[in-house]
Amino acid sequence: MIIAEKGIDIPKVTVNLFRMEQLSPEFLAINPQGTVPVLETDDGTYLTETVAICRYLEELQPEPPLMGSSAIEKALVLNWNNIVEQSGMISIAETLRNWSPGFRNRVFPGSTDYPQMPELIDRGRKRTEQFFDQIETRLQQSTYLAGNNFSLADISLLAITDFASWVEIKPTETRPALSLWHEAVSAGSRRYGFMPE
Amino acid sequence: MIIAEKGIDIPKVTVNLFRMEQLSPEFLAINPQGTVPVLETDDGTYLTETVAICRYLEELQPEPPLMGSSAIEKALVLNWNNIVEQSGMISIAETLRNWSPGFRNRVFPGSTDYPQMPELIDRGRKRTEQFFDQIETRLQQSTYLAGNNFSLADISLLAITDFASWVEIKPTETRPALSLWHEAVSAGSRRYGFMPE
Repeated sequence: MIIAEKGIDIPKVTVNLFRMEQLSPEFLAINPQGTVPVLETDDGTYLTETVAICRYLEELQPEPPLMGSSAIEKALVLNWNNIVEQSGMISIAETLRNWSPGFRNRVFPGSTDYPQMPELIDRGRKRTEQFFDQIETRLQQSTYLAGNNFSLADISLLAITDFASWVEIKPTETRPALSLWHEAVSAGSRRYGFMPE
Repeated sequence: MIIAEKGIDIPKVTVNLFRMEQLSPEFLAINPQGTVPVLETDDGTYLTETVAICRYLEELQPEPPLMGSSAIEKALVLNWNNIVEQSGMISIAETLRNWSPGFRNRVFPGSTDYPQMPELIDRGRKRTEQFFDQIETRLQQSTYLAGNNFSLADISLLAITDFASWVEIKPTETRPALSLWHEAVSAGSRRYGFMPE
């Protein structure tokens, strides 16, 4: 979505996670942690963290700004994006990876197997609900997650709000501010063809 | 360390975690998640994520730059800082919080109790060692974590390299590049009186 919003032309290579291509020798040579996405910059550097990739693209193509314009906006985008990644994403992943047969021994990304622990399934769900409660409180006070402008934090939140359905959580059903926000932001994302009309 | 490096004068309020002051009504009104640090900006905004606080201070006082100067440097600082927070810090915290009697029911920060799970102690230690292996590989190729310049990523890594001793891991003992880096960066941090001479 960042790439689409900024209209940057970047060649893409698909790494098929269902076929475990992220653990192939070719891909591990690029990112030994076996995670996607990875951005290869023009000087051959590999960036492996989404927030870092977005920072780089923001520097290359500042318009439209998606990581804030003023000092406080820039800080708030990182603040909320971090909360989404560290509280939201990790909690949903904890449930999904300990629960789904497709993730057997794949509790963490990367080359090392870790066995599933069924007792983490509910813990992850509980933390996920708490995360969305925090988000609901925020969206009752703010149009977008980081303030008055759409930003990377909203893109990350959109991804995991939809991702929550993988663990049978429907965060928008009981949270009116999140629901309104989700409707507005999803409408935007449909422009890029990422979501069905 | 960011505040000290930049020479900014910021009034500080100590929140005593051993006395659980982070869960007092007064503090939860400031940060409902019950985590430290929090920065209150001049306009009354509370920033609750370390990386966001640092971004704000970098905007207010750009010298010395601690989050990169060029586009690629800015991206690499966020990239490595994220790896330190999400792979390193979380793994050490997983061990400490599931292991130490002082963290009984305090497996996560905040107001909700979660019971300790002894089986996570070793998992956290294994992930911690893997994290430091990744760091060792990086520091064999790079003077500082994000490249040629000392940055926020090094400050975060210094914090958790020392923090690892809380779970009886001594990451520098078997990792020569990390050990050299640790010696150099610790010498810097002693200037501020954060570490004993």
